[in-house]
Amino acid sequence: MTSKIETLSAAFLPALEEEMRAVLGASAGSADPFYGMMHYHMGWADEQLQPADGNSGKRIRPVLCLLACAAAGGDWQQALPAAAAIEILHNFSLVHDDIEDNSPTRRGRPTLWTLYGQPQAINTGDAMFALAHLALARLADRSVPPPVVVHALRRFDETCVELTRGQYADMGFETRDGVAVADYLAMITGKTAMLVSLAAELGALVAGVDATRARVFADFGLNLGLAFQVQDDILGIWGDERITGKSAATDIITRKKTLPVLFGLSRSQGLRELYDKSEAGEDFVRTAVFLLDQTGAQEYAAGEAARYSKAAIDNLEAAEPLEPAATALWQLTDMLLRRDS
Amino acid sequence: MTSKIETLSAAFLPALEEEMRAVLGASAGSADPFYGMMHYHMGWADEQLQPADGNSGKRIRPVLCLLACAAAGGDWQQALPAAAAIEILHNFSLVHDDIEDNSPTRRGRPTLWTLYGQPQAINTGDAMFALAHLALARLADRSVPPPVVVHALRRFDETCVELTRGQYADMGFETRDGVAVADYLAMITGKTAMLVSLAAELGALVAGVDATRARVFADFGLNLGLAFQVQDDILGIWGDERITGKSAATDIITRKKTLPVLFGLSRSQGLRELYDKSEAGEDFVRTAVFLLDQTGAQEYAAGEAARYSKAAIDNLEAAEPLEPAATALWQLTDMLLRRDS
Repeated sequence: MTSKIETLSAAFLPALEEEMRAVLGASAGSADPFYGMMHYHMGWADEQLQPADGNSGKRIRPVLCLLACAAAGGDWQQALPAAAAIEILHNFSLVHDDIEDNSPTRRGRPTLWTLYGQPQAINTGDAMFALAHLALARLADRSVPPPVVVHALRRFDETCVELTRGQYADMGFETRDGVAVADYLAMITGKTAMLVSLAAELGALVAGVDATRARVFADFGLNLGLAFQVQDDILGIWGDERITGKSAATDIITRKKTLPVLFGLSRSQGLRELYDKSEAGEDFVRTAVFLLDQTGAQEYAAGEAARYSKAAIDNLEAAEPLEPAATALWQLTDMLLRRDS
Repeated sequence: MTSKIETLSAAFLPALEEEMRAVLGASAGSADPFYGMMHYHMGWADEQLQPADGNSGKRIRPVLCLLACAAAGGDWQQALPAAAAIEILHNFSLVHDDIEDNSPTRRGRPTLWTLYGQPQAINTGDAMFALAHLALARLADRSVPPPVVVHALRRFDETCVELTRGQYADMGFETRDGVAVADYLAMITGKTAMLVSLAAELGALVAGVDATRARVFADFGLNLGLAFQVQDDILGIWGDERITGKSAATDIITRKKTLPVLFGLSRSQGLRELYDKSEAGEDFVRTAVFLLDQTGAQEYAAGEAARYSKAAIDNLEAAEPLEPAATALWQLTDMLLRRDS
């Protein structure tokens, strides 16, 4: 049986790709490497910048945006510019994150900066950032009233500031001791959850709902994003590698300061001492997980994830979504909250 | 005697700084280094991120924006959000350019990336880019009609794309042989002239002029920007170092491919051979300038600068600017076109 989310995505995704291609100069089949570099990152071109069918990522945020629009009583096609803008913005942030984190690969391919150097990759990211705004401004061409377009653009940039503030905090954590759980939650709110929140909010705004109802959609996205991220943190330590496809305890090996780790560090002198050692011995991962388990870090994180999940579900109920998007939104929520990979 | 431009700037500049400070979180005197890094780059804070009165640059673009608004019959205070947005955008682009060009100093101080590392500097630039948009959206708070705000935001991002395309071309020129004069003019149009053009255009748009008259202001800015840049190219080779404060022939020493150099390379086999040598001998500068002079490169570039200057002056006449801004615009134009430093 095909689920509602699959049926709707089958309509959404080709329209979304077309909208993004129009904005990123891919419709014309341009041979200009200025756009070619963007197409490579988007998964539309290979390393020789020739057309390719690469891994483009899951497009969860734009699908959420289109579903929110339909669920709030709007025409999802009218929200395509917002969905495209959010996905291009997300991809811009990945281009710069990969440079900032010195990451050589993304979605199984070399990152843009490893192929073209940091200067061109920084600049390509900047161009994508500007193009994400132009994508959003196309709302004006789909009969969205100008005051709504201005409001959407402001919410978009307010979210961008939160994204960069989250990334600022995340980079700071790497070199900082004594990061508190509250700091961490503020960081993932900015870096991850705000963009999911914006996706739901903009969809609702395009549907023409008032500020109060748009806020309910925004809160739904925020809690969904937080629940998703905390689950990701749990999987990064205790995930089943046969399912996640990553080796278990990746986040321990890289000493990433995720929610369970920060909780554990605040409760266990032994874990603090272990993390203070610059050299990680062979038993590092096993000892770290043992000490973490002693603090109840997994139960704590699972409790937090459940709390955000519950809040997201309450928000979605309060939003009174319309069918058929409602069923698809519940399925998407279920998929994101009950995932094991 | 105080000139009209000085009188008007005395009113404009404090209002502009206040507008920018409000957007960049400096009004509240925030101790948050996330904003502190921006304040350092803007010249408002020292290396310890304490308040300081640093060199903030000349603010030519925002002054032009405010003058264009007044000259087109508008209230310059209504254009403050546009002027602030353009100056913040300009400063964002400098933060990233300094990383891309590996420049250690700017305005006599260490660049942001040399103090905080490339990752934080890239991210701070991104935050300023988002904040530049929020600055522009404040037009909506000054009774500018929403359709005009949407149009201004689109023109802003179209210009950002041209800026990044210009930077893309500029970085490519460094490693490329046979750069044509036409490629160079397209590059400086995107990298330099478009932002000057946008400043004049947005000022006129806020004044409420129609698209045709806004285009005349935009063309004025474009030609002014091109004339300025070509003059800069001439000064970079033949400038009087007692006046420019830089050693003469800087652009020869760094082998920068500016307009006179590209003209000379296209005309002189000897110059091409000289530039092909990886080692520059002691006589390199003297020989290069000698060969350049033989091709008539200085006269060619001066002719191009005169052509753009004439076009800018014609545009400004056609714009029929209103007093007292008109006199100030003529003075600014004169100052930019007749400069010798």
